[in-house]
Amino acid sequence: MSSTFGKIFTVTTWGESHGLAVGAVLDGCPAGIPLCEADIQAFLDRRRPGQGKLTTARSEKDQVRILSGVFEGKTTGTPISFAVFNEDQRSGDYSEIAKWYRPGHADLCYDLKYGFRDYRGGGRSSARETIGRVCAGTVAQKFLAQVAGTEFLAWVDSVGTIECGSFDTNTLTREKIEASPVRCPVEAFSEKMEQEILAAKKDGDSVGGTVKLLVRNVPAALGEPVFDRLDALLAQAMLSIPACKGFEIGSGFAGARMHGSEHNDVIFCEGGKFHTRTNNAGGCVGGISNGENILCRMAFKPTATISQSQNTASRDGENGELAAKGRHDPCVAVRAPVIVESMAALVLADLYLQQLRNRL
Amino acid sequence: MSSTFGKIFTVTTWGESHGLAVGAVLDGCPAGIPLCEADIQAFLDRRRPGQGKLTTARSEKDQVRILSGVFEGKTTGTPISFAVFNEDQRSGDYSEIAKWYRPGHADLCYDLKYGFRDYRGGGRSSARETIGRVCAGTVAQKFLAQVAGTEFLAWVDSVGTIECGSFDTNTLTREKIEASPVRCPVEAFSEKMEQEILAAKKDGDSVGGTVKLLVRNVPAALGEPVFDRLDALLAQAMLSIPACKGFEIGSGFAGARMHGSEHNDVIFCEGGKFHTRTNNAGGCVGGISNGENILCRMAFKPTATISQSQNTASRDGENGELAAKGRHDPCVAVRAPVIVESMAALVLADLYLQQLRNRL
Amino acid sequence: MSSTFGKIFTVTTWGESHGLAVGAVLDGCPAGIPLCEADIQAFLDRRRPGQGKLTTARSEKDQVRILSGVFEGKTTGTPISFAVFNEDQRSGDYSEIAKWYRPGHADLCYDLKYGFRDYRGGGRSSARETIGRVCAGTVAQKFLAQVAGTEFLAWVDSVGTIECGSFDTNTLTREKIEASPVRCPVEAFSEKMEQEILAAKKDGDSVGGTVKLLVRNVPAALGEPVFDRLDALLAQAMLSIPACKGFEIGSGFAGARMHGSEHNDVIFCEGGKFHTRTNNAGGCVGGISNGENILCRMAFKPTATISQSQNTASRDGENGELAAKGRHDPCVAVRAPVIVESMAALVLADLYLQQLRNRL
Amino acid sequence: MSSTFGKIFTVTTWGESHGLAVGAVLDGCPAGIPLCEADIQAFLDRRRPGQGKLTTARSEKDQVRILSGVFEGKTTGTPISFAVFNEDQRSGDYSEIAKWYRPGHADLCYDLKYGFRDYRGGGRSSARETIGRVCAGTVAQKFLAQVAGTEFLAWVDSVGTIECGSFDTNTLTREKIEASPVRCPVEAFSEKMEQEILAAKKDGDSVGGTVKLLVRNVPAALGEPVFDRLDALLAQAMLSIPACKGFEIGSGFAGARMHGSEHNDVIFCEGGKFHTRTNNAGGCVGGISNGENILCRMAFKPTATISQSQNTASRDGENGELAAKGRHDPCVAVRAPVIVESMAALVLADLYLQQLRNRL
Repeated sequence: MSSTFGKIFTVTTWGESHGLAVGAVLDGCPAGIPLCEADIQAFLDRRRPGQGKLTTARSEKDQVRILSGVFEGKTTGTPISFAVFNEDQRSGDYSEIAKWYRPGHADLCYDLKYGFRDYRGGGRSSARETIGRVCAGTVAQKFLAQVAGTEFLAWVDSVGTIECGSFDTNTLTREKIEASPVRCPVEAFSEKMEQEILAAKKDGDSVGGTVKLLVRNVPAALGEPVFDRLDALLAQAMLSIPACKGFEIGSGFAGARMHGSEHNDVIFCEGGKFHTRTNNAGGCVGGISNGENILCRMAFKPTATISQSQNTASRDGENGELAAKGRHDPCVAVRAPVIVESMAALVLADLYLQQLRNRL
Repeated sequence: MSSTFGKIFTVTTWGESHGLAVGAVLDGCPAGIPLCEADIQAFLDRRRPGQGKLTTARSEKDQVRILSGVFEGKTTGTPISFAVFNEDQRSGDYSEIAKWYRPGHADLCYDLKYGFRDYRGGGRSSARETIGRVCAGTVAQKFLAQVAGTEFLAWVDSVGTIECGSFDTNTLTREKIEASPVRCPVEAFSEKMEQEILAAKKDGDSVGGTVKLLVRNVPAALGEPVFDRLDALLAQAMLSIPACKGFEIGSGFAGARMHGSEHNDVIFCEGGKFHTRTNNAGGCVGGISNGENILCRMAFKPTATISQSQNTASRDGENGELAAKGRHDPCVAVRAPVIVESMAALVLADLYLQQLRNRL
Repeated sequence: MSSTFGKIFTVTTWGESHGLAVGAVLDGCPAGIPLCEADIQAFLDRRRPGQGKLTTARSEKDQVRILSGVFEGKTTGTPISFAVFNEDQRSGDYSEIAKWYRPGHADLCYDLKYGFRDYRGGGRSSARETIGRVCAGTVAQKFLAQVAGTEFLAWVDSVGTIECGSFDTNTLTREKIEASPVRCPVEAFSEKMEQEILAAKKDGDSVGGTVKLLVRNVPAALGEPVFDRLDALLAQAMLSIPACKGFEIGSGFAGARMHGSEHNDVIFCEGGKFHTRTNNAGGCVGGISNGENILCRMAFKPTATISQSQNTASRDGENGELAAKGRHDPCVAVRAPVIVESMAALVLADLYLQQLRNRL
Repeated sequence: MSSTFGKIFTVTTWGESHGLAVGAVLDGCPAGIPLCEADIQAFLDRRRPGQGKLTTARSEKDQVRILSGVFEGKTTGTPISFAVFNEDQRSGDYSEIAKWYRPGHADLCYDLKYGFRDYRGGGRSSARETIGRVCAGTVAQKFLAQVAGTEFLAWVDSVGTIECGSFDTNTLTREKIEASPVRCPVEAFSEKMEQEILAAKKDGDSVGGTVKLLVRNVPAALGEPVFDRLDALLAQAMLSIPACKGFEIGSGFAGARMHGSEHNDVIFCEGGKFHTRTNNAGGCVGGISNGENILCRMAFKPTATISQSQNTASRDGENGELAAKGRHDPCVAVRAPVIVESMAALVLADLYLQQLRNRL
């Protein structure tokens, strides 16, 4: 069940990069939520490749089909099946890639794990697997928007050494994020990041980056101690995204340098509701949402595939050299925001439904 | 099932700080592993409070009982039940703590979640809950040591702004770590960290810190794509520890600043085995262990309880001031290493058993 | 996790017949349900041995301790830990039982499964394991009584060839059932059953029986298609009880002999509520409760341990003869009703909480 | 996750009778098992309607597509996605069926559960949902045949009052079963059963039946105490099949009438292997397979849809009359054997992989 995420609101993804299709089954979604293919398509289009010079040239329409679970425009409470048929599968010559383990890629690990692998385009470790997550995550976003007005916003916070840093997020909108080709809403930095990516691309290289996530109108009381803490599940969710190598919430690693008197968020009550003056906790205390905004940051390593030649070993144990061909994003962080939002929404939707049992 | 962790090798913890006892049930442990109470006790003693001036004055022997699952000195394959009876429960006066929400604590969130709470000592959000994790985690460490010689070493990497930084970990041993009162194996830094903690304590304050984990002799091929990736489960495991606010593996956040040509670990084959020249991946590629050392780092916020007076709100919505009494660690990171090792061992033991199904 | 049952309202049992203790952890119970040890004790006493000449002479007080999860007389929403320490462990001579596989017992299977076994008293396959189920099941009964007035009644329907058959269950009460030494509420049959059991006991033999379960005031809409159908989970729950070999719901096997025109329960609406004229479905259609009474029947094989001498094989492969000593129930069905009720209540409590997610 | 079955070898089914498609995702299947669409098709054809006058006239080719998880003719260890697109969806007039609750059907329960339902053809409660089970179950049968030579044979044991009874199953083959139009391998009874079904059909009625399952070459030691006992999971698996109302294993209900001296299966050792002289246990003791044949029996109620007019209530609470139109099997048991085999194989494959952890 390692391709299944969640306990009540559960998604199971399936599919390889170069198979017939990729998709997901969403089980446990409440009945009665309005849903159509266009809802999903709008979010899928945000992760689609072929959107410009910053992403892979692989061109896919990634058109989603809903095969079950929706009747007369509403979810029925039964499993919702999504499928996206793969179109742009260049048959090409895979002999090189079948032989040599690409550095930074999971090729070797898949062979160690399963004894052999679908060597075309990374198989199951391909970013195309995340299509299923976005399908289900979009339903989660719709659901939480409906029941609580919850809003998910993820953007590129840094590319290589170009860091956007803090800015006033009160006026941040998805439109501002998507208006930037690198998905950084601060224009000055957006341009610098774009240059950084294009420079890497020109060198046949790639570059890393970080992504920030802000969630507004978070229902309080979400998170199930002790192992399904909200922050613990967010961490799992984010690290499960290909290329993600780090996660922090609220003050995160900076908080480890602070004193308690500085870090503790003062609680106050206003109009019958509890709030905190600061938000070092990132909206999560003791693993449970306190109703403040969730704020977290994720590190993405540079894309493993580069066109520069690299030393490596072959399946047969020969040491040699490999120059990758193919089409790849020079910076994976740029397409990550919608995936980050999707995974976060899956976590929150599941915890929202779990919380129903705690107080009857 | 939010108090259960793992899919095959599963631990369920139970118990509150001021209840009768705390403990855990370990289900799914293979039969035939030598185990006795002294094995567990040795590790529990590492997390025990009352060990010196750096930890809480609360003095507990924390003596473990194994109530089931072991026969004639070996595990039977059936559930192993651990219990540690609480001894030092000062009855005391809880009226203040019952009324005022402690800033940085989960008091408010527990009330929001369950409608009321066991206000004595943090209830389920208390660090005493981790006793059950250490019990089960110790079995996991024994199991992996037996089948693969796997070794887990966690130490304090920083306290406040005092950072130990990199050192040669090849000669690192648990003895060296435990010889330091702050569990930092580099003597010069150990002393500085100790001063930092004592200074905070003297001010009625607390201080944060980071912990590093090194795992040697990691079996290759562990980690179940796509959601139960090794790094994703480690992230969940670590963030589920009280006060942990960040996780990174291998190059982590620093990797997000790098280029692919620099970050990719070159693969080579020697004596029929595959290795990498560098270890930016931290032993985990595509969510699967590649056999190299696992290296990760965790951020712990400063202890929430401080004796300085703080503004806060009461359960009834009154805004006021609270000065906490009671006995607390000025820096939680110091007692975290054995908990970090335990959680990591639980993840690896579970994935080890899951991997048995992939290649028959 | 094979010692865990349920998805939201989950029980994990632990303990062997001759270990230090047996018990259970109940995780996922809503907060705020009144609960004390006496509540549990009253139900545990119903399964306790040593109650008369019809059950084993083994005498245990089976006194339950609640170690966590209850504060000021109410459940807190956190794990509830139950323990019953074993008292009457005759040390005795186990060499015979360690050597020879008892026919009808799980001795051989445990050796095949785990490589060795705790041979004292059946270890984990002992009926003492069900103590943990009754602890958690009693909480489930209390919970459902509180939220829906649900009532569980199980009784002995047959012993050997003595069958109680149908009677008017409208006036059935637990008191009537418990007033019978064999737990058959129809006096005439109760006496015959008692004779049947005593006759078997006198012969050094044992006898089988069936148990019926009636559930009143069942909330409608419980049961999660397609695999967690109410009837499917009841079947699993019942067959998981030691010695249970058969399950049927509603018309059951008799329904397989009927025509649709006879079997279909006519639906009608009265006072805004839907009912059926007959109840061949046993309260469950398409795996979902329809609000009618649940009625099912379970087959229990005769107790495997008998004092007559039997042919069997030894651990070492020697074929020979074994005459069991020890204290055993001549008819397990007699003590089964409270276990049956407990398992059914665990199923319904879990499904009740799951149903909260379907319609918001 | 109620549409997911199994813990390691897990199937998730999706799809409604009149949606675009039905299918399943099989996650956790070991890598390296030869698999192609024709393997699945051969088993799907056994459950296909339109095979003769005994089954529904609805004609579907039910052609399966494997969308992922197979590469170069072998399973890759990653999720295998199956889809069967629905073809024969008569658009027709659903106004009657949308209004009136069909007696014996889940219409009312789905409305109670989800607030509304896909009223076309039963939606998710349709037998078409079992297509996904057969897809995954066929892989399970292939897998177990490969690793242990395990063989699953299910047949119709009775139709209405016509009971086939015991016969020598040593020479039973799938060919003999499939040669009978009612899937009863005993020719004399096969003919009587056929008459019984045709008589019911002629009357616009339906009839119930029972199905027996025999499993040969069962690996010993399968079944995970205490809740995932082999017999408990088989019971859940069978009762989860639409229309199944009863389950018994080995002596089952007849065993409840026996004495222990008669019921206990004598164990003997021959050639280093343990066997039993009789098989009242049905191959399962203490919830664990002992290596003998598994034998169990399931009760199927008569098809709920009949063309005779029936009293019932409408969605709006009106009491009236309904005469169903549409195409239906007069006896569901006839198509059940391949579904029964599939579910049993899913249980055993999962337990086979779980057993790998118990003895290393």
